[in-house]
Amino acid sequence: MAGKFITIEGTEGTGKSTNIAVLEAMFRENGIDCLRTREPGGSAIAEKIRSLLLRNGEEKPADLTELLLIFAARAEHLAKRIKPALASGRWVLCDRFTDATFAYQGGGRGLSGESIATLQTLVQGELRPDLTLIFDLDPEIGLDRVSRRGNLDRFEREMIEFHHRVRRHYLDIARREPERCLLIDATGSPDEVGRRLRGAVIHRLPELQ
Amino acid sequence: MAGKFITIEGTEGTGKSTNIAVLEAMFRENGIDCLRTREPGGSAIAEKIRSLLLRNGEEKPADLTELLLIFAARAEHLAKRIKPALASGRWVLCDRFTDATFAYQGGGRGLSGESIATLQTLVQGELRPDLTLIFDLDPEIGLDRVSRRGNLDRFEREMIEFHHRVRRHYLDIARREPERCLLIDATGSPDEVGRRLRGAVIHRLPELQ
Repeated sequence: MAGKFITIEGTEGTGKSTNIAVLEAMFRENGIDCLRTREPGGSAIAEKIRSLLLRNGEEKPADLTELLLIFAARAEHLAKRIKPALASGRWVLCDRFTDATFAYQGGGRGLSGESIATLQTLVQGELRPDLTLIFDLDPEIGLDRVSRRGNLDRFEREMIEFHHRVRRHYLDIARREPERCLLIDATGSPDEVGRRLRGAVIHRLPELQ
Repeated sequence: MAGKFITIEGTEGTGKSTNIAVLEAMFRENGIDCLRTREPGGSAIAEKIRSLLLRNGEEKPADLTELLLIFAARAEHLAKRIKPALASGRWVLCDRFTDATFAYQGGGRGLSGESIATLQTLVQGELRPDLTLIFDLDPEIGLDRVSRRGNLDRFEREMIEFHHRVRRHYLDIARREPERCLLIDATGSPDEVGRRLRGAVIHRLPELQ
């Protein structure tokens, strides 16, 4: 049986990494073998593309270049890691996927959703996540959390209005696709968010107890 | 008035670089200001993508990754160099463009022409070259010329049948689009090919004498 494909989404500083660890622990307790990975990246060539995307260079890529690089990294990640894992029955837990492209490049940068959907079909065919967890938080609070961690990447440095547009786009996705998406309130302490996450996920994944 | 967009195509060892110099000299003699560039590459980020594509690494990108990287480099090249040059009235002389993608990734690797055409529309809109020169030669002769130059890149190392498929695809393009394409016989000495090129081009570009 194919494994489940679970993606984690949200704006900056919503605690994705901490909560991925919470999910991994839940899976382990239930004897579920899981590949943890991230986008953009997740394979050797995809990580090289990631570094082209995130560095604060003198030269910024054109918006369409950025979009095509993201889908190039995704095609590689799918072919080399995600699809083989799912086919062998492993679950895949992926930090960001195509919803991030709709939210950041579509909502944030204003690229047309139609272009993104065209590339989604070209690269993924019918493949969509079985479950997407969207962590939601006021971007002002999230960026404050992130800035305490130190150096910001090219996306984290965008203006606050960019991050508000990204958040609104994520909220739209959660509203439009309630069967696939779970919206998790990311305010409060890591423990509080972790408890909320466990409670929400257990209702969606009958494999967990 | 917008400049003319001229692309140079052909399999390995057909003498593209030598003949681009012949064309540049013709343009200079006629007072035509020309940007000479190449694909994949032609701008800082696009050249970084080029090096990902051409290196003989341990890991090969998936075919679809390769295709998306090529169009990412093309989007960057168009936005940063080709379109600004054409808009300012300069001519652009580009070593390979989208015909190479149809020939190498479509004909050579077997990716669907439909996927390539989808990306062509996404990245170029209606933009097509005003004139495309396709240099034609038996791949056995071409690869023999190239191997005398030394190190081969990842495309030059493909099996001979790959190069035959690429050539057939180029011949198809020349047949299907005779208004845009000029097929140049690349057998013989550089001087002979250069004379053939001059003779053919003069009939297509009234700006030259």
